[in-house]
Amino acid sequence: MTAKIRTMSELATLVKNGPLPDTVARDAACARDAVLTKPPGALGRLEEVAAWYCSWRGDARARVTAPQIVVFAGNHGITAQGVSAFPAEVTAQMVANFHAGGAAVNQLARQFGARLDVHALDLDRPTADFTQGPAMGDTDFLAALRTGWDAVDPGADLLVAGEMGIGNTTSASAIAHALFGAQAVDWTGKGTGIGAEALAIKTRVVASGVRRHEAIRRAPLEVLRCLGGRELAAMAGAILSARHQRIPVILDGFICCAAAACLAAEAPGALDHCIAGHVSAEVAHPRLLHQLGMEPLLSLEMRLGEGSGAALAIAIVQGALACHSGMATFEEAGIATG
Amino acid sequence: MTAKIRTMSELATLVKNGPLPDTVARDAACARDAVLTKPPGALGRLEEVAAWYCSWRGDARARVTAPQIVVFAGNHGITAQGVSAFPAEVTAQMVANFHAGGAAVNQLARQFGARLDVHALDLDRPTADFTQGPAMGDTDFLAALRTGWDAVDPGADLLVAGEMGIGNTTSASAIAHALFGAQAVDWTGKGTGIGAEALAIKTRVVASGVRRHEAIRRAPLEVLRCLGGRELAAMAGAILSARHQRIPVILDGFICCAAAACLAAEAPGALDHCIAGHVSAEVAHPRLLHQLGMEPLLSLEMRLGEGSGAALAIAIVQGALACHSGMATFEEAGIATG
Repeated sequence: MTAKIRTMSELATLVKNGPLPDTVARDAACARDAVLTKPPGALGRLEEVAAWYCSWRGDARARVTAPQIVVFAGNHGITAQGVSAFPAEVTAQMVANFHAGGAAVNQLARQFGARLDVHALDLDRPTADFTQGPAMGDTDFLAALRTGWDAVDPGADLLVAGEMGIGNTTSASAIAHALFGAQAVDWTGKGTGIGAEALAIKTRVVASGVRRHEAIRRAPLEVLRCLGGRELAAMAGAILSARHQRIPVILDGFICCAAAACLAAEAPGALDHCIAGHVSAEVAHPRLLHQLGMEPLLSLEMRLGEGSGAALAIAIVQGALACHSGMATFEEAGIATG
Repeated sequence: MTAKIRTMSELATLVKNGPLPDTVARDAACARDAVLTKPPGALGRLEEVAAWYCSWRGDARARVTAPQIVVFAGNHGITAQGVSAFPAEVTAQMVANFHAGGAAVNQLARQFGARLDVHALDLDRPTADFTQGPAMGDTDFLAALRTGWDAVDPGADLLVAGEMGIGNTTSASAIAHALFGAQAVDWTGKGTGIGAEALAIKTRVVASGVRRHEAIRRAPLEVLRCLGGRELAAMAGAILSARHQRIPVILDGFICCAAAACLAAEAPGALDHCIAGHVSAEVAHPRLLHQLGMEPLLSLEMRLGEGSGAALAIAIVQGALACHSGMATFEEAGIATG
């Protein structure tokens, strides 16, 4: 599915005009759930996941057969300030690792039968240091966002958008702080594992970046452009594209959720086709999920990015739909209903 | 692997003499984890699961290729007192549903590539009402336990033991109350979904059963015999058999954990080859997991039994080992380590 997205205003229109869930399919899915061979409610959150998924697919007996994971990589000017435990070269090295099949997300994609696509976004041209000015100009931002939009396979029936980008928890923290207030320290964590000194620097960078862009704090897509990175813009583009194609999305960790939060802040309901795959060990992720009104499927102290937590949650969604669409009804099985 | 288990004393010996984990394999797995292409600790609990699994398989780079789910079904004399929302005939009807492939656990087994075996244990001969006397005599109990022992496929590399048995949360509550004290009300919940009146009856039945067998409360295997059911005995037998074959086990919900708890109470460490697959919505399951010192992998408000929560957790263990054993090392990928 192609979209032009030539201007910030065209983007805002797409964010506001996403299709709505199919309530007929949802009601039919709930009716089916009520007669499956189990006590009512006994599959817990799997039932809710199945109804949600069916409502977006417009199919009361849907299954997950073609999950796709897209991983976007970008580099950040902000890394020059010493906010990460790893040097910026690692972004490109990890992209090579994705292509060679050696990263965690490659193993999870293979295990759960997901297609994996990797997009490196101008790695040799980091975004600008957001404490000095906007991370990206309109053209650059919209190009990254279109890369994300176009990355979604129209044949996919479940999407995970993941990221790799040394320094990008700093961007995510700044976005969350800009959108949801509180203090920089409330949104800033250890990322890949920095020490106390680097954390203090990172927190000051986040606070300084948000102050620098105070004027656009009420314009969420501008927040994404000014404080984000290309991989965050691309994730937002992929999530938006999935909405317009009625492909349900599993959100990954803190960075993915920060990018997604810009869509939700721009238009309430813009993430209704999304579910939180997991809550990560990054300190502010629970707070961010709370702001999004989302309850994560998994809580396994993961903090890797790459879409890895959401990739693991693919199995939960697959399991939910396998039960929902594969189980016998009480009538089919000839079972007394109490 | 065969064992005689002709007497309660032979059983106790087997419980006490399980093999220990392979610490060499565990250390080698941890050493491998430290050089995989990710920040240290970034896979969270998946890393711990991988090291645990490798230690039991004696292989620092193990994978899950042959998971097995065994479901045991039994009927309970106690149902005559009105402790369940469903009539006792449902046990046999659900066994037919398992054989026909229509239950939730069938779908999860298929989704995650697990072998599924179902054993119905003398369904037309319910155990005795445990408020009147022991649920099972020695012979009956040991036969059920041997069924469980023999049900484990020696070629399996991961085991889930599940159950079906109308009335069996009442047994599980009585076992937990007998082993861990507190009050009957602390251990008694809604099972498949009973109302307040039935819950009051169920709580009195649990209290009465434990008082009736006060004399054997310090003998955990006797607790399993006197307050359990055949499917609980079989689950304990399967878990014990898996230990002796170094097959890691994913525990399911409240009933599975109550059966398993009898092994742990008999011999500390008897469940070291087990992991908690999930915490269920049954009210006392968190308390029981706390007594077992276990942190569940999943928390999805499931309360179905059949091994379904643990079956879903197979995917988490598969994902953990896929990452651990499939990922590239920093050296293999040529990545800077910060």
